[in-house]
Amino acid sequence: MSYFDAASAAPLHPVARQALHASLDEGWADPARLYREGRRARMLLDAAREAAAEAVGCRPDELVFTPSGTRAVHLGVAGALAGRRRTGDHLIVSAVEHSSVLHAAEAHEAAGGTVTRLAVDRTAAVDPAAYADALRPGTALACLQSANHEVGTEQPVAEVAEACRAAGVPLLVDAAQSLGWGAVPGAWSLLAASAHKWGGPSGVGLLVVRKGARFAPQGPGDERESGRSAGFENIPAIVAAAASLRAVRAEAEREAARLRELTGRIRDRVPALVPDVEVVGDPERRLPGVVTFSCLYVDGETLLHELDRAGFSVSSGSSCTSSTLTPSHVLRAMGVLSEGNVRVSLPPGTPAEDVERFLEVLPGTVAGVRARLGAPDTRAGAPGAGADRVVDALGRRCPVPVIELAKVFGEVPLGGTVRVLSDDEAARLDIPAWCEMRGQEYVGEEPADRGAAYVVRRVS
Amino acid sequence: MSYFDAASAAPLHPVARQALHASLDEGWADPARLYREGRRARMLLDAAREAAAEAVGCRPDELVFTPSGTRAVHLGVAGALAGRRRTGDHLIVSAVEHSSVLHAAEAHEAAGGTVTRLAVDRTAAVDPAAYADALRPGTALACLQSANHEVGTEQPVAEVAEACRAAGVPLLVDAAQSLGWGAVPGAWSLLAASAHKWGGPSGVGLLVVRKGARFAPQGPGDERESGRSAGFENIPAIVAAAASLRAVRAEAEREAARLRELTGRIRDRVPALVPDVEVVGDPERRLPGVVTFSCLYVDGETLLHELDRAGFSVSSGSSCTSSTLTPSHVLRAMGVLSEGNVRVSLPPGTPAEDVERFLEVLPGTVAGVRARLGAPDTRAGAPGAGADRVVDALGRRCPVPVIELAKVFGEVPLGGTVRVLSDDEAARLDIPAWCEMRGQEYVGEEPADRGAAYVVRRVS
Repeated sequence: MSYFDAASAAPLHPVARQALHASLDEGWADPARLYREGRRARMLLDAAREAAAEAVGCRPDELVFTPSGTRAVHLGVAGALAGRRRTGDHLIVSAVEHSSVLHAAEAHEAAGGTVTRLAVDRTAAVDPAAYADALRPGTALACLQSANHEVGTEQPVAEVAEACRAAGVPLLVDAAQSLGWGAVPGAWSLLAASAHKWGGPSGVGLLVVRKGARFAPQGPGDERESGRSAGFENIPAIVAAAASLRAVRAEAEREAARLRELTGRIRDRVPALVPDVEVVGDPERRLPGVVTFSCLYVDGETLLHELDRAGFSVSSGSSCTSSTLTPSHVLRAMGVLSEGNVRVSLPPGTPAEDVERFLEVLPGTVAGVRARLGAPDTRAGAPGAGADRVVDALGRRCPVPVIELAKVFGEVPLGGTVRVLSDDEAARLDIPAWCEMRGQEYVGEEPADRGAAYVVRRVS
Repeated sequence: MSYFDAASAAPLHPVARQALHASLDEGWADPARLYREGRRARMLLDAAREAAAEAVGCRPDELVFTPSGTRAVHLGVAGALAGRRRTGDHLIVSAVEHSSVLHAAEAHEAAGGTVTRLAVDRTAAVDPAAYADALRPGTALACLQSANHEVGTEQPVAEVAEACRAAGVPLLVDAAQSLGWGAVPGAWSLLAASAHKWGGPSGVGLLVVRKGARFAPQGPGDERESGRSAGFENIPAIVAAAASLRAVRAEAEREAARLRELTGRIRDRVPALVPDVEVVGDPERRLPGVVTFSCLYVDGETLLHELDRAGFSVSSGSSCTSSTLTPSHVLRAMGVLSEGNVRVSLPPGTPAEDVERFLEVLPGTVAGVRARLGAPDTRAGAPGAGADRVVDALGRRCPVPVIELAKVFGEVPLGGTVRVLSDDEAARLDIPAWCEMRGQEYVGEEPADRGAAYVVRRVS
């Protein structure tokens, strides 16, 4: 078995396991108590806070532990917005943030706040100038991930932080995907992260609030974690989280270079091995272990299932997986193909042989799924002599609308059109992406009685 | 070392440790994923939910795991109030709830809601009739603990639940102190609990919402735990929590009888061994392992420190401990002595010898603290021939005001008074309690330039 979904959750690092076992005996008591079991728990908690702060590059009293990265984001966004309530209620986020940030933004909107969601380019990168433009006198907070969790693109955090600093607006960085690789540079004000992304245990997030950043914790609180994260501290897990962060950092430089070369192999070779594939995300500014691609004419859930059978655990942003009916918001914001989407995220230590085996298995797996779906020949033949065509794919889910489009396309004359009728949300993304990949013209979307009509013109 | 603070946090049960170790290898992946590591994690999570639901006596789909008992209470109160927003915004709690419930009530008030805090009797018990009287058409929710965390008194949950049911109001039970001993009886609607109170690991709480109870999760959410508790599930800890709940339940009947006898020894013998002690809480309807008493003329922090040196870890609701300036809200609501307060809460498995050793050590420890504080002779002598007296204890912290009162009392004639000037919050509780313990008349409190004047009349 090769587990290639470290961006969801990394397997427990051996140091985390060891630290967890050791601190179960020492760290179970209430650190607020004065008796020896409590003092021992307090010492462990303090030492873990110091180690984590050192790795983040902040003061220990700026860092609190939370029960998850999601909770760190929710608490951080709510506290920072409330702390600057007098300034205004405007929040800026990128369109490709993790759902925890987007959910916090939705909650802010539901409570009457205003939110600007900044577009990204086709690699998922934000434009620092767009942040600078969006900042205004009533902006209370801006949020930006250090790197994208679905396609691995690194964001220009330092530049955005500088724009925010110049405007006197705090920047909250969601560093969940990158903190194990290194400290986040720049003049950010708040930072959130999640231990199980770097090989620490589940149940530990961290929230950093720099001195000087206004912060008003929201919701019912208690005296724990500086009043910023209520509930009994999970000290054994916190100790394991801090120990493993230190351990992965010690290995980070070497392991990053190694994984970067392995994901580079996938980036380079998959388009040659598998026809009609789009590799997405920035080819240079990217996380070491993440590579994402999408395969035309492939149903993501079936592909994941077949890869699982072949011994590979990967994830997908396709709409046709895991009971979600819409493609991932990240792929949508990038405007790239969503069908047959595969994210490979390698945990540290992944052997090169596993990646080679994946590259061996993938072409046949994709071909098998395509054959079962009756996908068309991958290259359109010479233009046909037929008339304009209408494809009725109403009620059919991805990747069927694109498959049906491709099937008739060979019969369409140069300059002729195909109108694809579809009520599948993925078609809006995947039909234009198909056009871009195949060098055909995407004319646009027209309203229809049910769903929409997507119009494609044959130009080659 | 004898750890006698299980009501704060119980040491990890061997079954919890074993289950945690085993599930670290199987339960680290994302249970929302479809590959085998994800499916394995999902199976562990489902099995843990079934086991916990069986112990609670609910359906598995009524129970979600949260990162702590505090979080379960906060989420439960907020969701239940929001779910019945159209009915009204009135919340009922008892005055002796855990701080997590009281903090949730304060947050509700801050957001414009109304809260009724019901008084308790001298044993900390609520009166079901008081709940029935407080219920009104706009009541959205009532909360009651199953047993008090500071003095061990069991609450009449079934009766209060019945009154709530009759009025169509949901009752949320904070079962943190009792769930390890047995299911909570009665027609309650919501229940919260915390695994580290029953010997499970830190980092796991549970929230039960009965089918039919209206519930609208608040704050930013995600798709995990039925949308009721956001953030990546801590499956190894959840598995350990469920396994240890089952294990402690298997031992509960036998162990409850054994601990009840041991705490009974403390209840019975401490008043005989130590002069001027008040044992508090209900002598019959009580948790098996908890016994609480207060010692006149004793500084709680020093007593805890001395007991720790003698090898006993206990906690205290005194104001003069752990940097808090006010006595525990529970002792205050009961109207009992707060100075020199000691809570002994025995973990399952506590050997009888440890309790015997505690009873041996306690009298000398208390006497030592009293001697160091210059506490007066414990019995007032014959009435003196002096006049009314004024004791200026301004700026002095507990237990000094009571000690100063006792020092002059011997010189006061029958019918004469002592006015104690004090700005220590504890005096308001402890001077009337002293009067009750010593059979003297507490005349009342009068305003003063600083603090207040507490007036005591000598009647014996």
